[in-house]
Amino acid sequence: MAPLKLGMVGGGQGAFIGGVHRMAARLDGCFDLVAGAFSSDPDRAHASAAELGIAADRSYGDFNEMAKAEAVRSDGIDAVSIVTPNHLHGPIAEAFLAQGISVICDKPMTATLAQAESLLSVAQSSKGHFFLTHNYTGYPMIRQARQMVAEGALGEVRIVEANYLQDWLSVAPAEDNKQAKWRMDPVLSGGGAIGDIGTHAYNLACFVIGQRATSLSATLRSHVAGRSVDDDARVTLRFDAGAQGHIWASQVAIGNENNLTLAIYGSEGSLRWAQENPNVLWFSKLGQAPQMITRGGGAACPAAAAVTRIPAGHPEGYLEAFATLYREAADVIASQNLDGATLGVQEGLDGVRFVDACQRSSRDEAYWIDLR
Amino acid sequence: MAPLKLGMVGGGQGAFIGGVHRMAARLDGCFDLVAGAFSSDPDRAHASAAELGIAADRSYGDFNEMAKAEAVRSDGIDAVSIVTPNHLHGPIAEAFLAQGISVICDKPMTATLAQAESLLSVAQSSKGHFFLTHNYTGYPMIRQARQMVAEGALGEVRIVEANYLQDWLSVAPAEDNKQAKWRMDPVLSGGGAIGDIGTHAYNLACFVIGQRATSLSATLRSHVAGRSVDDDARVTLRFDAGAQGHIWASQVAIGNENNLTLAIYGSEGSLRWAQENPNVLWFSKLGQAPQMITRGGGAACPAAAAVTRIPAGHPEGYLEAFATLYREAADVIASQNLDGATLGVQEGLDGVRFVDACQRSSRDEAYWIDLR
Amino acid sequence: MAPLKLGMVGGGQGAFIGGVHRMAARLDGCFDLVAGAFSSDPDRAHASAAELGIAADRSYGDFNEMAKAEAVRSDGIDAVSIVTPNHLHGPIAEAFLAQGISVICDKPMTATLAQAESLLSVAQSSKGHFFLTHNYTGYPMIRQARQMVAEGALGEVRIVEANYLQDWLSVAPAEDNKQAKWRMDPVLSGGGAIGDIGTHAYNLACFVIGQRATSLSATLRSHVAGRSVDDDARVTLRFDAGAQGHIWASQVAIGNENNLTLAIYGSEGSLRWAQENPNVLWFSKLGQAPQMITRGGGAACPAAAAVTRIPAGHPEGYLEAFATLYREAADVIASQNLDGATLGVQEGLDGVRFVDACQRSSRDEAYWIDLR
Amino acid sequence: MAPLKLGMVGGGQGAFIGGVHRMAARLDGCFDLVAGAFSSDPDRAHASAAELGIAADRSYGDFNEMAKAEAVRSDGIDAVSIVTPNHLHGPIAEAFLAQGISVICDKPMTATLAQAESLLSVAQSSKGHFFLTHNYTGYPMIRQARQMVAEGALGEVRIVEANYLQDWLSVAPAEDNKQAKWRMDPVLSGGGAIGDIGTHAYNLACFVIGQRATSLSATLRSHVAGRSVDDDARVTLRFDAGAQGHIWASQVAIGNENNLTLAIYGSEGSLRWAQENPNVLWFSKLGQAPQMITRGGGAACPAAAAVTRIPAGHPEGYLEAFATLYREAADVIASQNLDGATLGVQEGLDGVRFVDACQRSSRDEAYWIDLR
Repeated sequence: MAPLKLGMVGGGQGAFIGGVHRMAARLDGCFDLVAGAFSSDPDRAHASAAELGIAADRSYGDFNEMAKAEAVRSDGIDAVSIVTPNHLHGPIAEAFLAQGISVICDKPMTATLAQAESLLSVAQSSKGHFFLTHNYTGYPMIRQARQMVAEGALGEVRIVEANYLQDWLSVAPAEDNKQAKWRMDPVLSGGGAIGDIGTHAYNLACFVIGQRATSLSATLRSHVAGRSVDDDARVTLRFDAGAQGHIWASQVAIGNENNLTLAIYGSEGSLRWAQENPNVLWFSKLGQAPQMITRGGGAACPAAAAVTRIPAGHPEGYLEAFATLYREAADVIASQNLDGATLGVQEGLDGVRFVDACQRSSRDEAYWIDLR
Repeated sequence: MAPLKLGMVGGGQGAFIGGVHRMAARLDGCFDLVAGAFSSDPDRAHASAAELGIAADRSYGDFNEMAKAEAVRSDGIDAVSIVTPNHLHGPIAEAFLAQGISVICDKPMTATLAQAESLLSVAQSSKGHFFLTHNYTGYPMIRQARQMVAEGALGEVRIVEANYLQDWLSVAPAEDNKQAKWRMDPVLSGGGAIGDIGTHAYNLACFVIGQRATSLSATLRSHVAGRSVDDDARVTLRFDAGAQGHIWASQVAIGNENNLTLAIYGSEGSLRWAQENPNVLWFSKLGQAPQMITRGGGAACPAAAAVTRIPAGHPEGYLEAFATLYREAADVIASQNLDGATLGVQEGLDGVRFVDACQRSSRDEAYWIDLR
Repeated sequence: MAPLKLGMVGGGQGAFIGGVHRMAARLDGCFDLVAGAFSSDPDRAHASAAELGIAADRSYGDFNEMAKAEAVRSDGIDAVSIVTPNHLHGPIAEAFLAQGISVICDKPMTATLAQAESLLSVAQSSKGHFFLTHNYTGYPMIRQARQMVAEGALGEVRIVEANYLQDWLSVAPAEDNKQAKWRMDPVLSGGGAIGDIGTHAYNLACFVIGQRATSLSATLRSHVAGRSVDDDARVTLRFDAGAQGHIWASQVAIGNENNLTLAIYGSEGSLRWAQENPNVLWFSKLGQAPQMITRGGGAACPAAAAVTRIPAGHPEGYLEAFATLYREAADVIASQNLDGATLGVQEGLDGVRFVDACQRSSRDEAYWIDLR
Repeated sequence: MAPLKLGMVGGGQGAFIGGVHRMAARLDGCFDLVAGAFSSDPDRAHASAAELGIAADRSYGDFNEMAKAEAVRSDGIDAVSIVTPNHLHGPIAEAFLAQGISVICDKPMTATLAQAESLLSVAQSSKGHFFLTHNYTGYPMIRQARQMVAEGALGEVRIVEANYLQDWLSVAPAEDNKQAKWRMDPVLSGGGAIGDIGTHAYNLACFVIGQRATSLSATLRSHVAGRSVDDDARVTLRFDAGAQGHIWASQVAIGNENNLTLAIYGSEGSLRWAQENPNVLWFSKLGQAPQMITRGGGAACPAAAAVTRIPAGHPEGYLEAFATLYREAADVIASQNLDGATLGVQEGLDGVRFVDACQRSSRDEAYWIDLR
């Protein structure tokens, strides 16, 4: 398959996640980055474009301009990656979808519920696709877990536990920490730990068990003086079929870097996984010796094999999982057939609703909020 | 020091925890077992006594008889171990304390709050001591953690997380499983997972951070049809100084044997420990490489060294931790000086209050219960 | 079973391994320590005896005197534990065996091959038993491994790897380090790392695969200036049936406390075990997910269960494994039936021959030495 | 920097390592693949080229033709990747170097010592560069280890241990296993485990300690009937400054996928690393708690940071390490300045000499071979 043409909004000099998206887009050769509006500051935008080898006529200072210009080029982009702070995701996505250009958007989908609902309606009437990069869903062992749950290897799911622990906000960040700055502003981010990493944990739990929560109770706290967003969140989830879920997202858990873990306990077996050593998945059946399933090992299933690049024992990591989402997006765009594993605007809305419900619940003493 | 003379109530043929107490009492040579009422069934009691090499005149069919007889012997017991089902702890302890005989009692202290309060008043007026065997407090790395927290190595405690996961009750136990049978009866046990293992987790969290919770909110659930006690418990704790605690006790978490873990996050550092590999303690300071502190290694502190028997790298386990509580009880009985680490009737009452509060909270939609 | 009467030679104040033997003898209640010659210095011997609660008339200043006196008492000891420096093991063992008293002897059996051969002939004509405490053979997961190999779970054994790494002799020890002092004297110890820990690794490898090596090639080195014994040993072993073995024993491997590991690779499967976390055993079959077998878990076999005291997930450690050897010795002495798992004078001789062969091989450029 | 133009020889349909090189070349955007002779079978070569989007006029059926044609194009390739079976590395590399085109060559450099020496002389007179892809040297924690050793963090290196264990050749491979087939032919591969993975272990040990071995003794064995190359290799190394090294390379160690481990013991500290979980490095100082250094964590040094793409706790894996070698090669080609970390023809010759010496040593009872 010839590479698709990709644009990017955000991700200029000094940004972090833009570079990740570019590597992910490049790894499997599915996309060529050919256009971008890399910063809301036009000078920085053009300097970034030059560094990235983008032709000058496809370096834009404004995303609206870019959407319109690319839509009318014969060699216009097939998709755009959105890697800005959260509050801009919605307007940018709408601008490109309105032009029929597919969108690959970082999470959370938007900073507010109103933005999410607006985007939903735009997306539904666009011929472009909307893809949400909850990148941890791209790990082969997560796909393995999802297939095993679907096939009943655990019996009925009783408990799902997804924790995402970091420590980088244990103290007030330095003034010049750009990554921290917008995340600490509730208007730009839409939330603290709950939006930044809690949504990943929530999405991962739902993705693997194949269910959506029906209600939740949440407690959000903030441990650092002067901080206006949460840095530690606890959420209890209920699912229709009787399962209970627990999310713990913290950015003040010293000694944790990106310690995202998932455990699923069913009536007959369990699965455990940790993002920091993602090539193994622990599977236990009641009364039997726990098994260490490895990506590429003898117990790996087709869903894992489909997103595996290299043999067992040679670790694949974060970028490979991210690249899998890009490859699957490219497949959908090229084939126009929806893949079962990609996440879209519905999951994006679910995530924003999750954040909103957690914030409301927490303000009201962990009151139970209906998600249906 | 010459060994003290020990009696035992419960722990006859077919019991589990009695044998553990006997090994723990024997390991350091602090106690000789010389008397017992090993079962409520007199035939089984005497048969058990004979197996254990107890003289016939000190094998009793009834604990009241035993308490009175031993109190008047010139070579009467210095202490009695109580290893019966929970609902008998209170009456037995009172019978011996009333005679001035010290008591070493398995947890939870009693099956009901009324029993606990009664025992408290009896214990306060006895010349005997009351010791509660929350055995996990005997692990050297738990003592290390407690000393480190007390010395401020973590800064201010923000979060304490104690989980105790088992899987042996994931399905309905076999009819002849004596261990399961009384635990499944709320009258005999006083509670399910919350009393059996939740109390351990709660006690451990409080022991290490040196604080008592002031309020809690709990959700108890039961996953197996026909079960009349909880098998999965989630508790949120608040502490006066601002820390928040979380307890998860489950007996349906397949793949877990006795997976008791403790994590403490402070403003400057964290500690993590797991009972199944208890000779190591992870210590992280913000921005530094995590350190693996080992029992007996160069970073072990005096509190750990004091309860260590063998050199680093030769694992001490569950029985050694248990034996430490016996040794410390013997020291207190012999010296009449209270040791800082032994647990007594106050901690016992705290534990029973904890169970009671969890049950009340859970019945009322996780309502917050004041513990003061 | 009533406890047997135990004596001890060595293990007085300031010693390490004596205390371990006493705890091991006590844990299961199989032995009462009633007599001893606890030091070659009579004052220290009697002071130690008093501390240990030994009757004055059974505290001896000399092991020969003790052997004779105990042999004629009606309540004389059933067995003696020998916990002196290595060069005294032989003479002491012979003195007691000559009186028909069973011997429980620390390893290596003797400091020289001549002593070992002499002891062999004395032991063969004694009515007493000789037990060698290669204590790591007492771990349940080692018994599990041995049974699995015997039953063919691995197919044919191809490779056995036993490493024992420590770091406490990485620099010259302090002058007053009693443990180090006699070990550094080749006359008292018979060898350095090779005798002190290499023999453990060698014995463990042979014990688990159920074979004796037929030849070996060794390289012994010393890394610290002025040291007259080896502190790092590498040995290659050949076995009759085609397996090859490798031993690495080091006391200068910084970061290792008592890191004894065993790996066995067969034509169909493998096993891996580590002493510092001894309650698990890794089992891999070609093409399948590796399994974590736990002591007491669903995959534990009868050989493991037979030496297990407490449920799965509650760790047993070094002292429990050591106590198993004492319990098995007590069973043999009481029943006069040899148990399949106890080690005796033949294994002791094998160990001393191993050290002797390693030293000769190393002096001659790792020349291959026949062990048959 | 604009991407360099890359060609490839080998790596067509059905091959493994070619795909890895392509992903590695692409990840950082340093190379565009524009030409290739992807198979020695011209039909397969062209079909592969078409799949890869290579222009038809730059798909070659023969590497000699390709070298000549690309050398004269104005847009000719800057470098060629060689990913064929080992026996072709030498002739292909010479063909391109003779045209002044830089070579990025998989290891081992050649299948025979004669080929390696020939290539050395060609390389020395070429204006092209020669890069050897011992890809494990690209891991950030390996760079960290190398810097720490160089800065004296371990004191003097005493022992280096590099093991590379696999299990995929534990039984005779299937007839149609293309990867196994050429590796099992000593003419095509130049050796078995010793060449395929032993060279990686040897190179890694030397790379990290910054020394070349001066002599070695080796034992190569084969465990499967009918196999004409080794599948298990043990090598002892001596270094000038007194260090001793040990290599174990096995392809019959069941339960191991690509279990490459490195341990370095010095007079003051040690380092340990494992490829299957490559983002951590264990550092121990004598008498202190071992530290877990993480890629991107607070203890990471500049050498690690320089080859790190994403934040701590988001694992980088095999492809990222491989990509680092491509990026560094691109930097050298573009700048004409040699980088300290790239490996070239000298290291390639060292590796081939290592294999040759191991084979000679093993044929002569592990005789010591001088490497100087």
